[in-house]
Amino acid sequence: MSVSVKEICEKARDASYKLAAISAEEKNRMLEAIACAIEKNKEAILEANRKDIEAYTKKDTTFLDRLTLNPKRIDAIISGVKEIIALDDPVGEIVEDRTLKNGLRIKRVRAPLGVIGIIYEARPNVTIDALALCLKSGNSVVLRGGSDAINSNRALYLTAYNALKDAGFLCDCIGFIDDISREKSREMLEMEGLIDVMIPRGGEGLKKFVLEHAKMPVIASAGGNCHVYVDKDAKLDIAERIVLNAKLQRPSVCNAAETLLVHKDLADTFLPDILKKLSDSGVELLGCNETMKRCPFVKEATDLDFATEFECLKLTVKVVDGVGEACDHINKFGTKHSEAIVTENKEAATYFEKNVDAACVYVNASTRFTDGFEFGLGAEMGISTQKLHARGPIALKELTSVKYIVEGNGQIRE
Amino acid sequence: MSVSVKEICEKARDASYKLAAISAEEKNRMLEAIACAIEKNKEAILEANRKDIEAYTKKDTTFLDRLTLNPKRIDAIISGVKEIIALDDPVGEIVEDRTLKNGLRIKRVRAPLGVIGIIYEARPNVTIDALALCLKSGNSVVLRGGSDAINSNRALYLTAYNALKDAGFLCDCIGFIDDISREKSREMLEMEGLIDVMIPRGGEGLKKFVLEHAKMPVIASAGGNCHVYVDKDAKLDIAERIVLNAKLQRPSVCNAAETLLVHKDLADTFLPDILKKLSDSGVELLGCNETMKRCPFVKEATDLDFATEFECLKLTVKVVDGVGEACDHINKFGTKHSEAIVTENKEAATYFEKNVDAACVYVNASTRFTDGFEFGLGAEMGISTQKLHARGPIALKELTSVKYIVEGNGQIRE
Repeated sequence: MSVSVKEICEKARDASYKLAAISAEEKNRMLEAIACAIEKNKEAILEANRKDIEAYTKKDTTFLDRLTLNPKRIDAIISGVKEIIALDDPVGEIVEDRTLKNGLRIKRVRAPLGVIGIIYEARPNVTIDALALCLKSGNSVVLRGGSDAINSNRALYLTAYNALKDAGFLCDCIGFIDDISREKSREMLEMEGLIDVMIPRGGEGLKKFVLEHAKMPVIASAGGNCHVYVDKDAKLDIAERIVLNAKLQRPSVCNAAETLLVHKDLADTFLPDILKKLSDSGVELLGCNETMKRCPFVKEATDLDFATEFECLKLTVKVVDGVGEACDHINKFGTKHSEAIVTENKEAATYFEKNVDAACVYVNASTRFTDGFEFGLGAEMGISTQKLHARGPIALKELTSVKYIVEGNGQIRE
Repeated sequence: MSVSVKEICEKARDASYKLAAISAEEKNRMLEAIACAIEKNKEAILEANRKDIEAYTKKDTTFLDRLTLNPKRIDAIISGVKEIIALDDPVGEIVEDRTLKNGLRIKRVRAPLGVIGIIYEARPNVTIDALALCLKSGNSVVLRGGSDAINSNRALYLTAYNALKDAGFLCDCIGFIDDISREKSREMLEMEGLIDVMIPRGGEGLKKFVLEHAKMPVIASAGGNCHVYVDKDAKLDIAERIVLNAKLQRPSVCNAAETLLVHKDLADTFLPDILKKLSDSGVELLGCNETMKRCPFVKEATDLDFATEFECLKLTVKVVDGVGEACDHINKFGTKHSEAIVTENKEAATYFEKNVDAACVYVNASTRFTDGFEFGLGAEMGISTQKLHARGPIALKELTSVKYIVEGNGQIRE
């Protein structure tokens, strides 16, 4: 294709102003048209995906699995779009509304960001997920998928684009960089002024690349080195349930626990019990001296271990003096993602809530709940541990900005 | 001084966790102590300032004026601190509060950003203004002032630091880089992980430098190429008042108007009248062909003129077809700061509100109101035209993040 990255971004930018003023109903009709077209084009999309799979010669089976589409996965893409249709439109929401003494009415109103750039890796479904979330939040989107999925991504993108175009909808609001050379990603990251924000969706390598080269702001999801602290005033059955859930239910994800902190008063009772259960479930345990003293099957944990997000059946363990030391440890070693305390003591809970610096702080609940759907926010683009703009699930509202609308009847400044 | 930038930042980081949990009352007492100490140390501060003024050999009188302190300006610094004391503490504000079906209570609570880095130029008062705003919003601050004001800045900083220390308050939450070499600024901008956000306060050069080199997010205030659009359905007395105010009241500031857009139906009536008045007030006018045809004293405006923030008695003028063309022009040439429409037509007003992409959109009011105090937000660190995190006045709330506090009674994820 001969269209340059800049031209694609300029079209998206121009369309973004129109899209910002389009009603929720119209945006939902656009998404409906896309969902319908994917249903109709199922065979062609699968055919394109087969080309990608045939062309993939490396032996990374996880990657291959991510790359692969099948009828069931296409259905999931379609129902994903329908779920996004069902979400409330964040644009136009009045966040604040005040009238000043001079009669000026000052509203803060949710508005789109403008143009969102997405760089993603193996999963072709991101083409539609990202596009639908951006469209619903009134943003133009410029997509740049991984080279291994180029045929699938192109088929999905063109299905969406033609669906909009054929029905007479605004279609330049969705752009696609149909060129797999690496320089195109770099070029895209230099489109400040045309792209308002970049969102990388993929592994740590991609995220680093984007953060390093992007000239515009970046919203990135992050890994989690999450902790559960069991306080002396914990209900022990609740503590056990939460620890086991946070570590075992899905160890590979970012909101799984990587460290267990236990109050010293429980070091001779709860600690050996829970570690035995974790060990019996196949968890490799690395602990502090106090832990090792009591549980001979625990190996020594280094500071590096305490700082590591294992994403597997491995857990570090430390006995602490109390909630103060627990917070200090978390603030030192954590990644500001999801942190839990188990306690019935109000004071300890409040101290933990205030002192732990993290996107999500839990009292008597599993860290595993950090998720857009679990939080009732619907589909998201990952979990942000940044403090600016988006902290926690990157859902529809996080894809918007606000603007001040000031209404008067001739006020001037004296 | 032998303390390294890293050590200063580490101290500020450690203190930030404690500061996050300190009550509004305690923070106000800290600010009171600082205000008192400045009052007491007035003479020493003025003496330090005299050293800076003596050492300043260049001939930039604007710069020299910014650098100069006098008893009245010190009083203004003190009353600035008192105004900040009177503001509501944003930390702990519950932004959202929901209970899910599974019983989990999900609150979004305002929390400090952590450590804010400030790099500033000539004005010594920024030392205290910035420090007080950061402290009130629960943030540690690391200050790095301009070399020409080093004696004044040091005197002000040490006054504040010793006031906190002597009264037994947390004092490592305010840091100061007492080394005027340029490398120290670069070093500071590489303290990601220790400094959460950088705020440059000064001219465009400083802002560019910070945006280019900062490894952490930046909140920057920006210039404004602001427009007033007078619609065909405008009340002409209101239009005149607003245009004159937006251009003339203080032409040097970012929220002053730089372009006047006039509906073609008013090109033979309102346009020549208002341009005559502007010209009589000393405004140099640059216009489109339609404008020049009607007003011979108007020179030709180039695209570059339309894109320029004059910050002086100069104005570009363009006749447009209607609100659509007005919005297109603003989105093309504006800097997304403050934009106004004058109209009694609801539809035109709504179209303008939705389609103009700017931090502040005005209907029947002067663009000059874009300001923290005018908006009832109190002191601010400038006006942001970014779309992420802070848009509009960078007041206390913009110096905070949010965190999710999730409270349960043993919930785990199935």
